[in-house]
Amino acid sequence: MQGNLLTQEYIQAIETELQEVVSKAGGADLDVFKHMLAYHMGWEGEGSGRKATGKRIRPLLLLLTCSAAGGNWENALPAAAAVELIHNFSLLHDDIEDNSPLRRGRPTVWSKWGIPQALNTGDGMFTLAHLAMLKIKDTTDSQTVITAEFILHNTCLRLTQGQYLDIAFESRNEISLDSYWAMIEGKTAALFSACTQIGALIAKTSESTRENYRRYGHFLGLSFQIIDDILGIWGDAVLTGKPAESDMVSGKKTLPILYGISQKGTFASRWTKGRITPEEVPFLARQLEAEGALHFSENEASRLTQNAKEALEQAHPSGIAEETLISLTNYLFDRKR
Amino acid sequence: MQGNLLTQEYIQAIETELQEVVSKAGGADLDVFKHMLAYHMGWEGEGSGRKATGKRIRPLLLLLTCSAAGGNWENALPAAAAVELIHNFSLLHDDIEDNSPLRRGRPTVWSKWGIPQALNTGDGMFTLAHLAMLKIKDTTDSQTVITAEFILHNTCLRLTQGQYLDIAFESRNEISLDSYWAMIEGKTAALFSACTQIGALIAKTSESTRENYRRYGHFLGLSFQIIDDILGIWGDAVLTGKPAESDMVSGKKTLPILYGISQKGTFASRWTKGRITPEEVPFLARQLEAEGALHFSENEASRLTQNAKEALEQAHPSGIAEETLISLTNYLFDRKR
Repeated sequence: MQGNLLTQEYIQAIETELQEVVSKAGGADLDVFKHMLAYHMGWEGEGSGRKATGKRIRPLLLLLTCSAAGGNWENALPAAAAVELIHNFSLLHDDIEDNSPLRRGRPTVWSKWGIPQALNTGDGMFTLAHLAMLKIKDTTDSQTVITAEFILHNTCLRLTQGQYLDIAFESRNEISLDSYWAMIEGKTAALFSACTQIGALIAKTSESTRENYRRYGHFLGLSFQIIDDILGIWGDAVLTGKPAESDMVSGKKTLPILYGISQKGTFASRWTKGRITPEEVPFLARQLEAEGALHFSENEASRLTQNAKEALEQAHPSGIAEETLISLTNYLFDRKR
Repeated sequence: MQGNLLTQEYIQAIETELQEVVSKAGGADLDVFKHMLAYHMGWEGEGSGRKATGKRIRPLLLLLTCSAAGGNWENALPAAAAVELIHNFSLLHDDIEDNSPLRRGRPTVWSKWGIPQALNTGDGMFTLAHLAMLKIKDTTDSQTVITAEFILHNTCLRLTQGQYLDIAFESRNEISLDSYWAMIEGKTAALFSACTQIGALIAKTSESTRENYRRYGHFLGLSFQIIDDILGIWGDAVLTGKPAESDMVSGKKTLPILYGISQKGTFASRWTKGRITPEEVPFLARQLEAEGALHFSENEASRLTQNAKEALEQAHPSGIAEETLISLTNYLFDRKR
């Protein structure tokens, strides 16, 4: 309950900080540019509001880590805004790359304003993220600012490398598990571990403690992605609601699908015959489960969540933020969407 | 002659620095990702070599400014690589936004590898630019690093704002000259002035001298863009070689075209009737010249080049680098392509 109140306070502060950063993009003749940014963030236009903003998990993770590591979370707010803007920049570009018409139930920026403007808006969001991060210089020393920027830039490089692999894998038949781990490490875990590292950095922990927080974020991110993979096939939303949005239909190389392919059973023989239709989704999801892919994936997510918790424990967090981090870790593992 | 030798030495050092930065993008399974970056930079693939790399004007401007301001140009090499990578990131994304099949006579990255990979490669290039910039920390103090990063991030924001205007103007009929100046300030002049500012910053000049160098880069960038606008209509390459690549055909709102529209003469009445065909280019280029658009644009470029030279003089540059900066300024004004 206390942890929940903490979360509410943080989320509100994050939203205020994000809006201040994004307002910098405005100016003469630039109303639509700023509107596209605000639309994507969930603040403006059709369907705006709480459901459209997303859960702000990454900035929350950063602030909670900073608090749990003994820092002043308010000093970390610009960094929290930065990681959320990086996440949203990558979504804006992903939507173009994946040709996705919808994001959180609303038309994507590219489908409303066209690819050229959406692409450029993503570049603007990327830039705002870095401008946000630099603001930590007002409350911390120069060396910390440079280290935080270095972590963030390296994370972005890993994001683009992971994204490269994700796109390249679409047209490859054989993907090893090693390649899968490299892909999700870049695509998802890198930004989670940046959150926990930068939170600890701003709290001025020892390097070994920061390394434990980094490992916590790393394992949490890997587990988060596998849960996403599971929900992409067996989640209520796709299985009973929108089978056309199933990862089986889009042809994504997620963990359950790679496991299913490796079993060389009924699922694998259907998979190799070409794109799966929405009508086949319920049967093939049951088949994939019967062949052990759900059990295998859940085990992997559980193992990685356990690794995350152990790394967190080794970082010796404290206070209400510690409890909230543990609740957040459990929530991300148990979530249904 | 001495200045020319200086340029050669700088260009070679820039190329080495760029290659080192880009090599960081490689790794297991990432050969094609790195190849796309190297292809766009002009180092690999069909048609690679001197003609494919571009002129590296921006990093040269940065190094020459650093030298002329009394700094050690070698300390500025990572910053020089950064501005060239920012320029190339924007070209990679521009090519997608403008639907351009060719860049410097070679197929663009998107036309060879598809939009998703090209978009993501541009994001990778953007990130490498920032990683390059951070390397100046090895030879300068933390405060200078943070200021350089701040200048670069602000420049990128203005780049995306200028690009937004450029795309938005395509579908607008009435564009004021004020809007035109705001657009090219963001699209072109911002990066030029970042080059001269950061060069002066690394040379540790006074703030007022750095401001004079900033103004030099600003006016040089505006003039550079107007020369580009002139060549886009009356340059040999488009007028006699590839009329289909004329800015009149693509419908870009460049300075001569805006001037022609404002004259409400023969050119304007043809322009408002719809897209111009390559066959009409020679006649309409002569018509636009007869209506005064070439004279007006050349006067503006000349005035801005003069402003640039005055700002440079006020910065009190010195040494061979000073002469080379003046030669570069004249060359950019007199160039034919």
